[in-house]
Amino acid sequence: MTRHETPRLPSGFRCAAKHCGIKAAGDDLALFYCDRMANAAGLLTRNHFPGAPILLARERLKRGLLRGVVVNSGVSNVATGARGIDDARRMAAAAAAELDVDPAHVLVGSTGVIGRPLPIERVEAGIRGMAAEAGSDPLVGARGIMTTDRVPKAFSLEVEGATVSVVGKGAGMIAPNMATMLVYFFTDAEASSSALREMLWAGARDSFQVLSVDTDTSTSDMVVAMASGAAGPVSPTTLAEAFAGLSEQMAEAIARDGEGATRLLRVTVGGAVDEVEARRIARSVAESPLVKTMIYGRDPNVGRILMAVGKCVECRIQPDRVQAELQGMAVIRDGLRADFDETTLRERLGLDTVEIRIDLGVGSAGGRALGCDLTEGYIEENTAYASS
Amino acid sequence: MTRHETPRLPSGFRCAAKHCGIKAAGDDLALFYCDRMANAAGLLTRNHFPGAPILLARERLKRGLLRGVVVNSGVSNVATGARGIDDARRMAAAAAAELDVDPAHVLVGSTGVIGRPLPIERVEAGIRGMAAEAGSDPLVGARGIMTTDRVPKAFSLEVEGATVSVVGKGAGMIAPNMATMLVYFFTDAEASSSALREMLWAGARDSFQVLSVDTDTSTSDMVVAMASGAAGPVSPTTLAEAFAGLSEQMAEAIARDGEGATRLLRVTVGGAVDEVEARRIARSVAESPLVKTMIYGRDPNVGRILMAVGKCVECRIQPDRVQAELQGMAVIRDGLRADFDETTLRERLGLDTVEIRIDLGVGSAGGRALGCDLTEGYIEENTAYASS
Repeated sequence: MTRHETPRLPSGFRCAAKHCGIKAAGDDLALFYCDRMANAAGLLTRNHFPGAPILLARERLKRGLLRGVVVNSGVSNVATGARGIDDARRMAAAAAAELDVDPAHVLVGSTGVIGRPLPIERVEAGIRGMAAEAGSDPLVGARGIMTTDRVPKAFSLEVEGATVSVVGKGAGMIAPNMATMLVYFFTDAEASSSALREMLWAGARDSFQVLSVDTDTSTSDMVVAMASGAAGPVSPTTLAEAFAGLSEQMAEAIARDGEGATRLLRVTVGGAVDEVEARRIARSVAESPLVKTMIYGRDPNVGRILMAVGKCVECRIQPDRVQAELQGMAVIRDGLRADFDETTLRERLGLDTVEIRIDLGVGSAGGRALGCDLTEGYIEENTAYASS
Repeated sequence: MTRHETPRLPSGFRCAAKHCGIKAAGDDLALFYCDRMANAAGLLTRNHFPGAPILLARERLKRGLLRGVVVNSGVSNVATGARGIDDARRMAAAAAAELDVDPAHVLVGSTGVIGRPLPIERVEAGIRGMAAEAGSDPLVGARGIMTTDRVPKAFSLEVEGATVSVVGKGAGMIAPNMATMLVYFFTDAEASSSALREMLWAGARDSFQVLSVDTDTSTSDMVVAMASGAAGPVSPTTLAEAFAGLSEQMAEAIARDGEGATRLLRVTVGGAVDEVEARRIARSVAESPLVKTMIYGRDPNVGRILMAVGKCVECRIQPDRVQAELQGMAVIRDGLRADFDETTLRERLGLDTVEIRIDLGVGSAGGRALGCDLTEGYIEENTAYASS
């Protein structure tokens, strides 16, 4: 498995992006497509108010065949009723016409403000001509689907002569409950729709499913994969590893690019009675506003880690067995604050990745969570989002 | 039931506060006491890492008799091991000596940084002479227990010739799971320890138990009541109403004074299948960072309300039956964004109390939550708390 320094799309896949006028400025439309029919699968948000693109995806992913995905940013087409569904279908139809394929094989993704209608004529006009402009740089497509993201996110790697690429966006309204952002996998490896679905699930388990920027679950999230088979078969284990590795890389990139975030936060919990509790406690620590502000402030107020573990009142915890490390330094020993060098810890808290490791000492199960710090930037970003 | 404009302590109760040197400046020590034995009861934090004062309270509240409570701010005496327990006992003994009562009848409360030892000699020296300085203004005691609170919080009312007073502090690390701050009720009405406990529970149900400033649960929280009986009997229903009314007033005051908060947020959910789900959904909305920043920004981005309802994936919700009002204006109708006047809503979002009412339309159960907005002030307050 070789990771590419500069990400690229697999053979036969292309993408384009442009500004069509949904947002005031910047790309707000992206088209991804394959030169042949691809097997496809997806994981969709579990929010009770799924957007029109999610409803359409539920229907279209059943057949497990896709030629392309068209995605807009700026307006999420959620809570828009019958008109929203119609707009999503029109958007797919416009992309299908541009690609000269069956609209049933085109998926739609939308991200942005909830409850506003899509300016569908602008979207339709924007789609025209995109196929001709398309190229093999996935960062171009990634740029077209950014909302509050500060950096476009795309990664790829080589496995047994095939390429696996992932393009994603996500910065806020991100918490597990599947999924948590827009993420698209493209590969020229052979894989059936059901194999793709299994690989997505397995890969998401310790990446997208443990990622929380702000505890809020988007109504538009999807993780979708397309496999064209053009590069022939790849061993299933290797391909699954490629999906898992790229899922983790993308999830960490999203956490690091969390709204206002300055640091990626990785929390690992071991010694738990079972995995459910290990994951719950890891998430409690990663989501705690007081832990997150402590990290932002490089403030070794490590009691907050104990607080965030201890607030999981339903979990089985024995206080005097709890150990914790922050940036490799023991900060909690047997449930008490350990002696540590505050100056050194302050320095290490300045690194761009912060690791918290907790051992509960009551079992052998483990779990992890990914998050980020909480800063004024998150507030600024979100106080006037609909108006900006 | 008559509410006092200016709060006062019941007959026979007195309090004092002073600066003893735990914090760099400001009062950091308070003493509350009664001139006779009072029946007592309390609700204590469920965090797995309770502080030494909580462990002592578990023991001392069993007997249901108290003469006084001594409280410090600045250091919470949590995760301090055997030394912490010893310090809490010494603090109680010093107050007992000052009051000339049995140390078993003195409760200790501490609030502040976790994991630091109490400067117990300063506390002991500080307690000396406090009884002589004590008076009947509960705001003096309230001032002594403030941490990040901007205003001291005390309220009182008259019922059938008796007085019921409440003194509390709380601003951050506040979420249900009992309890969520330091709150002390004092009354000269007659009430048994078990009756007090019942009234505390009942009163907390829709106040302290639905209050969340930041989803974090303190390790030091307690709600304690003392009843001296000096004013004779009061009808149990009236007394329970007084406790419930003061609990609500205090919970709202704490939410309004949440770290960095500029607005109180009340969320009411009706039409739910059961109360557990109604309360869970109300809390999800009140705790959502995206709803909280929307309120701070007076931004009518009402889709976030749907998102926060919809992320309760385990609750029974039918999207097209959901109605919501924000500041009395219909913003969600049948699960879709309603047409409303954005300018008027923006103005109303500037009021110091924000009301969100949600009707799920699938049952007849209701529930509520109290919270506040999320601002840069919360970040500033919490990035360097241990160091400031």
